[in-house]
Amino acid sequence: MLTNEQAELKARLLELDTAAVSDAMDSLGCNRALAGIAPRVDGVKMAGPVYTVQYEPFDSPPTSFQGAGNYIDDVPAGYVLLINNHGNTLCTNWGDILTRKALMQGIAGTVINGSARDIALVRSLEYPLFTKGVYMVSGKNRVRVTAVDVPVIIGDVQVEPGDWLFGDDNGVLVLPAHQIAEILARAEQVLATEADIVRAIEGGSKLDTARKSLGYATPWNPPNGR
Amino acid sequence: MLTNEQAELKARLLELDTAAVSDAMDSLGCNRALAGIAPRVDGVKMAGPVYTVQYEPFDSPPTSFQGAGNYIDDVPAGYVLLINNHGNTLCTNWGDILTRKALMQGIAGTVINGSARDIALVRSLEYPLFTKGVYMVSGKNRVRVTAVDVPVIIGDVQVEPGDWLFGDDNGVLVLPAHQIAEILARAEQVLATEADIVRAIEGGSKLDTARKSLGYATPWNPPNGR
Amino acid sequence: MLTNEQAELKARLLELDTAAVSDAMDSLGCNRALAGIAPRVDGVKMAGPVYTVQYEPFDSPPTSFQGAGNYIDDVPAGYVLLINNHGNTLCTNWGDILTRKALMQGIAGTVINGSARDIALVRSLEYPLFTKGVYMVSGKNRVRVTAVDVPVIIGDVQVEPGDWLFGDDNGVLVLPAHQIAEILARAEQVLATEADIVRAIEGGSKLDTARKSLGYATPWNPPNGR
Repeated sequence: MLTNEQAELKARLLELDTAAVSDAMDSLGCNRALAGIAPRVDGVKMAGPVYTVQYEPFDSPPTSFQGAGNYIDDVPAGYVLLINNHGNTLCTNWGDILTRKALMQGIAGTVINGSARDIALVRSLEYPLFTKGVYMVSGKNRVRVTAVDVPVIIGDVQVEPGDWLFGDDNGVLVLPAHQIAEILARAEQVLATEADIVRAIEGGSKLDTARKSLGYATPWNPPNGR
Repeated sequence: MLTNEQAELKARLLELDTAAVSDAMDSLGCNRALAGIAPRVDGVKMAGPVYTVQYEPFDSPPTSFQGAGNYIDDVPAGYVLLINNHGNTLCTNWGDILTRKALMQGIAGTVINGSARDIALVRSLEYPLFTKGVYMVSGKNRVRVTAVDVPVIIGDVQVEPGDWLFGDDNGVLVLPAHQIAEILARAEQVLATEADIVRAIEGGSKLDTARKSLGYATPWNPPNGR
Repeated sequence: MLTNEQAELKARLLELDTAAVSDAMDSLGCNRALAGIAPRVDGVKMAGPVYTVQYEPFDSPPTSFQGAGNYIDDVPAGYVLLINNHGNTLCTNWGDILTRKALMQGIAGTVINGSARDIALVRSLEYPLFTKGVYMVSGKNRVRVTAVDVPVIIGDVQVEPGDWLFGDDNGVLVLPAHQIAEILARAEQVLATEADIVRAIEGGSKLDTARKSLGYATPWNPPNGR
């Protein structure tokens, strides 16, 4: 379960979007986004500390189905699952039963460097799911969990236990644990600066003028001291 | 038109989903899924014996439009069209007129190793369409039908006349003709086992425990003799 | 702002679809479609003369955010923006503020050889947006505008100022300036011929017969002199 401090971070993140948070991370030189991993449900937002699950292919396939998702019993409420199947989209690491169990446990969402199935059910339950692919062939007797709650590498991004994941219709960001407070503070300023610019252009200003007067070049540090 | 036996197989398949059927095929060592071919209409399910159409590029482009889809007059009601354009997404093999004609003839759906156009109309008519791509450039004077109702190869999957295609939001499976009865029987058991597991976890069971007691390792052969 | 003549061309185009226009272009041997660029909003249609924007990567990244979208103040109402970021999907050239400003200026839509962000907002405003990718990382301090209203190359298609862009659920076509009148006239005939064929098959005709009698081979020049 999330601590009070974590619950407050989460509430603040869910008021933002990945665009503002990515800009804040840019201003700190720490941008880490998961390229190629797309939302499978429209209009959902997801935030929480990461719980990682590492998969590897079987050396020799087993003769009966393996319960490759049983780790889920140990995932704390409020966490976001990050499943690394090394970008293999030809077998799935998520489906019907795991979605239902995740919702019952209060898991905040699932991000897969690989594929998921039972997409129609996931959509009807509005469970936040982000994946590289969609398929129906099970990973059960093709890959197995080799570690949980460990550092994993997705593309060229290293994700550590303690980091947070934040996702919306644009995709998924990885927030480094020690920079979350500063990222949030800056992202809230970015959003406020952008709202000022929208108001200015809706009042008839040129975009160029609005951006200059309202501090677009450093939106995390607006000129009016807001 | 489908025989009574085929109509019954179809009705049973439409009660299932590709996840359960894929697991049943795994248990028989005969999984054949069409990687990279995605549903273009959400929430549709499609099942039926295959009618294959093989396209090849023209050696030299014709000077007038060719009626590259006229094979459709010969497709029996209840069949699923499988069009092989060798994964070429830069010209289309399906559109407005073929969709309307297919619906009038009672064709069950269309799967294309290539692209389709007039997607908005296909969606409004809820016609089951699965393709690799979406584009608008016609195949009319770029490719031509060289054979129908013959074996075709899609990626690394060989499809024979007599095989069945089964598709839903997860993608498309190819069911070998001689194994359909056994696949269906096993898939129905898989679905029942999964429903048992969902009931158990909704009653508070851990996933690990539910799977062990309810026969997840061999879901097509549940321990309670259901 | 569009001239009266342009406004009339636009109204006629919006009665058509990219399939019919693509066929008309085929009949003239001038097909130019933007492969790999997909609609990000379902059910929208877009037409207008092109306004091109060329981006290039920074040699050395700037230390503050650059107003990379300020060109928008100069885009005339009724034009379609074509942004060339060389197919780079790992940073975005479009988002929230530009969408709002484009709508206020009466810009007809945006096509990006690259990525956009703030997709949820774009959808809620039903702004016609066509892109190669979706992401959240800003292009602000990664790429910069080097030229506007110049010829650009998208894939293997050269687009010139004066050309028109036309997009719908199937994708985006580039209409060469000097052929627009002839393309439109032929596309209207194509659509009428296809409507005749649909009526014939709905009346019970075989597709083969309907196509032969109704001039499918040269739909821009129907036999009945319509």
